Amino acid sequence: MRRRGVRAALAALEEGQFFKEELSNVNKSKLRIIPLGGLEQIGMNITAYEYEDSIIVVDCGLAFPEDDMLGIDLVIPDITYLKENIDKVKGFIITHGHEDHIGALPYVLKELNVPVYATKLTVGIIDNKLKEHNMLKTTKRKVVKYGQSINLGAFRVEFIRVNHSIADAAALAIFTPVGTIVHTGDFKVDYTPMFSDMIDLQRLAELGKKGVLALLADSTNVERPGFTMSERMVAKTFDTIFSENMNHRLIVATFASNVDRVQQIIYTAEKYDRKVVIEGRSMVNIISTAAELGYIKIPENIMIDIEQIKNYPDEKLVLITTGSQGEAMAALSRMANSTHKKVSIVPGDAVILSSHPIPGNEKQVSKIINELTRKGAKVITQDTHVSGHACQEEIKLIYALTKPKYAIPLHGEYHHRVTHGQLAQSMGLDKDRVFILSSGDVLELDEESGNVVDKVEAHGIFVDGLGVGDVGNVVLRDRQHLSENGLLIIVLTLQKYTNEVLAGPDIVSRGFVYVKESENLMDEAREVVIDALERCLARNMSDWGKIKSTMKDSLSDYLWKRMKRNPMILPIIMEVDA
Amino acid sequence: MRRRGVRAALAALEEGQFFKEELSNVNKSKLRIIPLGGLEQIGMNITAYEYEDSIIVVDCGLAFPEDDMLGIDLVIPDITYLKENIDKVKGFIITHGHEDHIGALPYVLKELNVPVYATKLTVGIIDNKLKEHNMLKTTKRKVVKYGQSINLGAFRVEFIRVNHSIADAAALAIFTPVGTIVHTGDFKVDYTPMFSDMIDLQRLAELGKKGVLALLADSTNVERPGFTMSERMVAKTFDTIFSENMNHRLIVATFASNVDRVQQIIYTAEKYDRKVVIEGRSMVNIISTAAELGYIKIPENIMIDIEQIKNYPDEKLVLITTGSQGEAMAALSRMANSTHKKVSIVPGDAVILSSHPIPGNEKQVSKIINELTRKGAKVITQDTHVSGHACQEEIKLIYALTKPKYAIPLHGEYHHRVTHGQLAQSMGLDKDRVFILSSGDVLELDEESGNVVDKVEAHGIFVDGLGVGDVGNVVLRDRQHLSENGLLIIVLTLQKYTNEVLAGPDIVSRGFVYVKESENLMDEAREVVIDALERCLARNMSDWGKIKSTMKDSLSDYLWKRMKRNPMILPIIMEVDA
Repeated sequence: MRRRGVRAALAALEEGQFFKEELSNVNKSKLRIIPLGGLEQIGMNITAYEYEDSIIVVDCGLAFPEDDMLGIDLVIPDITYLKENIDKVKGFIITHGHEDHIGALPYVLKELNVPVYATKLTVGIIDNKLKEHNMLKTTKRKVVKYGQSINLGAFRVEFIRVNHSIADAAALAIFTPVGTIVHTGDFKVDYTPMFSDMIDLQRLAELGKKGVLALLADSTNVERPGFTMSERMVAKTFDTIFSENMNHRLIVATFASNVDRVQQIIYTAEKYDRKVVIEGRSMVNIISTAAELGYIKIPENIMIDIEQIKNYPDEKLVLITTGSQGEAMAALSRMANSTHKKVSIVPGDAVILSSHPIPGNEKQVSKIINELTRKGAKVITQDTHVSGHACQEEIKLIYALTKPKYAIPLHGEYHHRVTHGQLAQSMGLDKDRVFILSSGDVLELDEESGNVVDKVEAHGIFVDGLGVGDVGNVVLRDRQHLSENGLLIIVLTLQKYTNEVLAGPDIVSRGFVYVKESENLMDEAREVVIDALERCLARNMSDWGKIKSTMKDSLSDYLWKRMKRNPMILPIIMEVDA
Repeated sequence: MRRRGVRAALAALEEGQFFKEELSNVNKSKLRIIPLGGLEQIGMNITAYEYEDSIIVVDCGLAFPEDDMLGIDLVIPDITYLKENIDKVKGFIITHGHEDHIGALPYVLKELNVPVYATKLTVGIIDNKLKEHNMLKTTKRKVVKYGQSINLGAFRVEFIRVNHSIADAAALAIFTPVGTIVHTGDFKVDYTPMFSDMIDLQRLAELGKKGVLALLADSTNVERPGFTMSERMVAKTFDTIFSENMNHRLIVATFASNVDRVQQIIYTAEKYDRKVVIEGRSMVNIISTAAELGYIKIPENIMIDIEQIKNYPDEKLVLITTGSQGEAMAALSRMANSTHKKVSIVPGDAVILSSHPIPGNEKQVSKIINELTRKGAKVITQDTHVSGHACQEEIKLIYALTKPKYAIPLHGEYHHRVTHGQLAQSMGLDKDRVFILSSGDVLELDEESGNVVDKVEAHGIFVDGLGVGDVGNVVLRDRQHLSENGLLIIVLTLQKYTNEVLAGPDIVSRGFVYVKESENLMDEAREVVIDALERCLARNMSDWGKIKSTMKDSLSDYLWKRMKRNPMILPIIMEVDA
């Protein structure tokens, strides 16, 4: 539309006409950057880039629920803005295969069926997901190689190799009519990665040399000074653990997606002549995908099925399993709690937790360590993991190479992004060139200036079971209330018109007190309700709403005074026709 | 009884009689050590020592609820065993004034009114607590000085100075007929404490030289190598923060009970000519008590009331406040969320979190840091706190000085105590001289051997509002169920005898879905229930239990198939007389 506008304006100029407004609009065309999640809901990464009639979306992640989102399984981004502009949307560009970057794709693609672009392993992992949702046939996926570019409307997007805790992770150079954007995705700088090449610092430098408009970089570890350790450090630890525990079974729990980590464990197992078992659904899925696509090499005759472990002595086995975050349903938890069908922890087992607890999981990880220790296992956590995210010096390096005009910190809590902003300033950026955005902020950007000009809907949408978006704050507030003090139901049957009490009032409770041991209390509570009801009826109160609230308030007062508790009280009146 | 038994036995021997059984019993008199909490429920410290007709109890703490203890306010120890042996119980000896060592006293003393022995500040803090429960007059408290001993039945207990994150903390030497016990309580070794003397290592060495039977020591930091930093390190940090933030208001959040920390802040405020405001109920309480008792010195004219802050420029103020753990109701949270009546965070405020998040609190601390940052505050957490618990080298030092025959790790999760046990073995103790106890274990001990001979009731008791022990696992399971998927109530009024349906079935839901947006669903659900009911009535089913379960199961199946959710379903049938 606007391009035609330019031609029209030029033609008009030639013809001696002057379309001032049209022309100034043309000059004003700016890039719009809209993070649609991942800022309030950490983890839910999705960023839209818009220029005139083109929109591309980088990543499409989900978030796991916060503690107060009771009963919620997942949180996915609100894509109202994208649906409203569906004709502009050219596709999703995915930086890597972690849940917080790909997890919402099946939900979102149902409403917005556009192509998905990613590296080979990332597409492989996305395919697993689409298969589960029966969407493989209806979704267009395209594998892009490092160094390769794709053209999407006004944009050209180049994939650049980075290091991260999953193989095949990419940063993006997004070439736009107003300048080049570098979007790092999640990254670290590993000079000595185990199995792939290091991050393509040269290309980032080259882009910087030519001029980078804005850098959108990972803020996760920005509060940690120094450099993230190389994956090679973990390799040394594994070697030591294998050589020090020759007489015991080894069980290693790690993130299913950390393909390089799993590769290391397999190679170390080979060196020490142990058979390897892969356990846990997501681990089996990702490792088979990675093996099929050549991202993991499996020496001959090393893998055995979990059914076969009884045929080998413990000291000849390594189990690689899910559950390193203490997740209650994962394989390691089931082993620790003796609910696993095939594996029981025995004294002497060495269990290696090859991950750090994600913030919020500390307690459940600690619980599982206690359970394992109780069963006689030795639990090893020291030096068994390195982060996949860049620390301060690595982030500074990316600024030094790309020398962006603008810094837009991504991926991290608010305080991380503020710290990242300060780091950018320490690298020479002016304060007004650093943007700490909120989800839904519309940032308009060009060489001259950047401004947040609008705000679009970008709250997380709750997924509970198969329901998407049918649980909101009212429902959550009720769940909270129910969870804290339980529930009392007052039931009562009244005759229509006469309001004669035909049955009740009875009180039924759940999650309140041990009823058997609190019979007195329940009897007294019933008396309180009967009194309240009689007062209403004596006054010929016919409004059932008022009768209900009188009973409720009386009971509520009584319970608060007697026991300082505030359960949900639900009065129900049934009506019987005369 | 047994002492008289000895004399009787000796008399009998003199008289040429031989009471074999009686005599062997006499020889067998052993010390019994019974941890009644603090091992499964970390935090809830209470340990009984029993010898013949004497019991003393060290500490009487409470625990804060775990995530799955929905709606529970506190957990207190089960003292059934003590009540059954009430005639033997000589008193409580309290090592220091933290909640996990004193918090259950008001609840326990109501059922077991025995004297309480502690150092001066600890008694002061206990007194505050007893005052709140109107128990000051009915409870005997006795202040004991470091080096002083008290005689309690078969025991003599000496208080020994230790360093900890609260002033006036004590280890105990418990002299028993079978040997000397050293019970460290919570401790660290601070060679350069700020305001009091260092831990009395000489006395511990002297006891060791004379012979220590068992060491019961703090395991909290046993997995950390090296030494805990001195409180003096924090002093340096505070000085730097004050000098670097001359133009801004300072707000310091720390544990109310860390009296020495507060003292430091006050002295630094004095040096930099700032007024000090103390905010938060528990902070005001403890600091006034500490000031009254001389544990904190307040320079003249430095303290101002929170009402007066408007009379001073921001850069002349320091607020010392509660809420360093992100507790929702504490002063700092209210400031961050703009619900504090007197203080709003303004851009430029420097907020110092002078504490580490207690495991489990990481997320809520992170939330508050985000809120403060959003309001424009600078949040400082680096080097602003040191732990109050001994690391590996300090624990080893105590073993080296006391050279105990037995090690009984206390205070810490199971895996901490196992690590502590390994540390004790590395210091030369045989494996069978190290006891990793569970709450309720009865350990019998003498010079020759130690054995767990019995198990007494020691589960935590839940306090919910004013109710103590009326919420148990069934109630919690209901709360869990309600919190995850909410509730559907089926109500129905039937005619007595004929089972004619007079009203309903109706469905009422809470915490399930947005009903307004899910009218179809609720209509269908009602159809399912009506079908089920009609099937029951057509078959002349008269057992209401069966009718209820048929309706419930049908609805449950329907909801699972349609939306993969599993709400609590509560069928209620009301009966109307013919």
